[in-house]
Amino acid sequence: MNRRKFFRNGTLFTLGTAIINPFESSANSLDNSIEFKGKKAKNIIVLVSDGMSSGTLNMADIHLNRKNGNGSNWLNLYRENKVTRALMDMASASSVVTDSAAASSSWGSGFRVKNGALNVGTNGEEYLPIWQKFKKAGKMAGCVTTVPITHATPAGFCVNSKSRNSQADIAESYLNLNFDVMMGGGQQYFDANSRKDKKDLYAAFQSKGYQVAKTRSEMHSTSNDKPILGLFFEDGLPYSIDRENIKDLGNTIPTLAEMTQKAIDRMKDHKKGFVLQVEAGKVDWAAHANDIAGLLYDQVAFDEAVKVAMDFAEKDKETLVIITTDHGNANPGLIYGKNVNDHFDSVQHHKHTNEWILNGFTPESTLAQIKERIEFANGFALTDDEAKTILSYYSNLEKQDDGLYNYKNLPFKTFAEMQKSRTSVGWISMDHSADFTELAMFGPGSEKLKPFIKNTDLHYFMLEAAEVENKF
Amino acid sequence: MNRRKFFRNGTLFTLGTAIINPFESSANSLDNSIEFKGKKAKNIIVLVSDGMSSGTLNMADIHLNRKNGNGSNWLNLYRENKVTRALMDMASASSVVTDSAAASSSWGSGFRVKNGALNVGTNGEEYLPIWQKFKKAGKMAGCVTTVPITHATPAGFCVNSKSRNSQADIAESYLNLNFDVMMGGGQQYFDANSRKDKKDLYAAFQSKGYQVAKTRSEMHSTSNDKPILGLFFEDGLPYSIDRENIKDLGNTIPTLAEMTQKAIDRMKDHKKGFVLQVEAGKVDWAAHANDIAGLLYDQVAFDEAVKVAMDFAEKDKETLVIITTDHGNANPGLIYGKNVNDHFDSVQHHKHTNEWILNGFTPESTLAQIKERIEFANGFALTDDEAKTILSYYSNLEKQDDGLYNYKNLPFKTFAEMQKSRTSVGWISMDHSADFTELAMFGPGSEKLKPFIKNTDLHYFMLEAAEVENKF
Repeated sequence: MNRRKFFRNGTLFTLGTAIINPFESSANSLDNSIEFKGKKAKNIIVLVSDGMSSGTLNMADIHLNRKNGNGSNWLNLYRENKVTRALMDMASASSVVTDSAAASSSWGSGFRVKNGALNVGTNGEEYLPIWQKFKKAGKMAGCVTTVPITHATPAGFCVNSKSRNSQADIAESYLNLNFDVMMGGGQQYFDANSRKDKKDLYAAFQSKGYQVAKTRSEMHSTSNDKPILGLFFEDGLPYSIDRENIKDLGNTIPTLAEMTQKAIDRMKDHKKGFVLQVEAGKVDWAAHANDIAGLLYDQVAFDEAVKVAMDFAEKDKETLVIITTDHGNANPGLIYGKNVNDHFDSVQHHKHTNEWILNGFTPESTLAQIKERIEFANGFALTDDEAKTILSYYSNLEKQDDGLYNYKNLPFKTFAEMQKSRTSVGWISMDHSADFTELAMFGPGSEKLKPFIKNTDLHYFMLEAAEVENKF
Repeated sequence: MNRRKFFRNGTLFTLGTAIINPFESSANSLDNSIEFKGKKAKNIIVLVSDGMSSGTLNMADIHLNRKNGNGSNWLNLYRENKVTRALMDMASASSVVTDSAAASSSWGSGFRVKNGALNVGTNGEEYLPIWQKFKKAGKMAGCVTTVPITHATPAGFCVNSKSRNSQADIAESYLNLNFDVMMGGGQQYFDANSRKDKKDLYAAFQSKGYQVAKTRSEMHSTSNDKPILGLFFEDGLPYSIDRENIKDLGNTIPTLAEMTQKAIDRMKDHKKGFVLQVEAGKVDWAAHANDIAGLLYDQVAFDEAVKVAMDFAEKDKETLVIITTDHGNANPGLIYGKNVNDHFDSVQHHKHTNEWILNGFTPESTLAQIKERIEFANGFALTDDEAKTILSYYSNLEKQDDGLYNYKNLPFKTFAEMQKSRTSVGWISMDHSADFTELAMFGPGSEKLKPFIKNTDLHYFMLEAAEVENKF
């Protein structure tokens, strides 16, 4: 039988962007994982897009496909049949909807803990965090993130803490880990001027032999022979799209892909291998703010870090790459309608996040100023009534709800509702969701992944893939 | 090295419901599909939960897990590593967000058509629908659904039509197909009294040799030797939870699982095999209405049909089972919060859909009646202000938006917002989303599935799996 005959129209599969012919090659979901069967993972890179609902993953791919015809690096791994996949149940000990601390702890410790805790069990048990296990096994270890390096997701691989909020203490506890690369935001937790206890952690890390980098160029200038502490902003790093469009930020702040490359370069020649966590933490912050430009462009920045990790792993052949998220957030999606294609394409021309937009207004702003700033940043004009609604929040700021991710009480929700009719993007809430998360793997061990796992399974999976005995 | 040593606590994996030990068995994502390698699919069963966002799939699993400890049949196939999986890009010729007609046509014809069309191309080309291809190849063919049998998803496998809305014409065109089982709702399109042209299609089908069943018991009484037309309700069938709790409905209306079993029994002994489409069409309708009880319990009813198909296929070993959805809808999800577990568990005690609730009010309803009916159906009491808001819609019904799925303009959206604070379930909209869809396969051919496909690929995939040459 001639396989060709199945295809009435041979050109069908060259339409669109990805040339997919489901029978053309002998490749199927078995082939790539077979290459690694029985091999040991010398290195592990775990990439986490924090708070990435499936809609976020999908929208980034659709966005890139419509913009440049290429799709996302993450989903192209599926198109090219290079990875194994699973759904992961991320429930915590206290809730079907996890927070990032319990989520990271489940991977970090192999146990489900209550929301808010870092590798501390319901009865106070302290579980040795996984990057400490690998360090004891002789590997180098590191984390890079776009939020404070002391934030829940990196902290969950590194330390024990009853509360994720103790970021100043977490910063200090990093001193004793002797990890090899720690980079991201969070200068406020290291700087003597902003720490309540006035301790100078920069000096403390330097006296331990760390190179301290506070800018992108300082990071690029660090030697690969000594450990690196890189802190590039007071709190979380600026969103990718703001970094692109605010003068000098692009020069002073590295991208997540650049930090990932630096971390790999620092650790790749270590004889016993390395483990690296890479987090796009502000994907979660943007979802909390229903901030489409923040979300989409930080997901794209994450996707570029995926490429850096995969480029290394495909050459190295001894690296297990794990690509996932810790929970959904706000379940964004593109909504049916006559103009959905054009609406979504308009986000290609956004210049700034809602965070940037809404931080630019005061009770004294005029309606004209509000409309002008939004038109500049988003390319559409509010009605007068909409501008009045936005302005009303600034004279009544204290009346708004407080929250971890919106301490200034800016009108994120109201503005996102206004954008919805222009972007066709909707949100279910401003918080995490219970959705099972997407998990993809490449490299030695990936062939063992089953299609559905619990979060805690991943802890043991990493140890087994690297053949590090869990004897700690 | 002792694999046991990876597990600090051997009891960990017996917590929760599914006993998952990622290394305990040699099973991995390769094993089950290898069993079928090189084998031909004599039969194909395609199960479609229409408009099922990933959150719908996940919530049904969480619901069943918390209720009875077993999870859903669909996701248990993942837990048991029995299927291959993919994401599927469902975009239509006119939009990144498809409707059900273009979605079904992409599978039905192998071509992307514009939203609203059934196997008719952008220049009027008519593509032979896939169930007609299989019928020509000597197989039996059928469809069962919970919406009218003339609705977009079954119609997309069966006929050509410029517009999905021509359901009376579609009913008539089914006459000439000689398909073997057609069951669902939609009596209005067959009954001389409700058809504009007064044609009696019941009589027409009977004269073609069809057995006509209008109730569950009539369906069960049909012989498996002759074709069956089963029409059990005027329009879509009642939602599962209403069927359960309204006297007699359970006796007169079959479940989707029962229709699936009947269709299999009718066709399974045919020498050249059969093809069957099974659609949970009201999952989509419930999402359009942001109706959590409608959505959740119809997804559970779909899940029971999955079990019927899998039970058959696992014994038969010559059946390809395809489980998927045609697009997301409203992207529902469980939202983070202190009470999310209890909130979501409260839906276990819902007795009726929002459709049932809101159809019970008139402009003359009292606030007490409104509160009483909602408390009866959902187990919580509205505030007086909330009840007033609901009532206000009934005196102003004509002011509300019109729409395909809410022709009475009932306050579905407003009520869903009120439920959100009690159920912790949120929705992004009342319409389809662009999310890539979940696809799972079992049986001969399933080993060829790649992790990412286009909707049109599935057309050729089915033909190839069954080794039916595309020479039509």
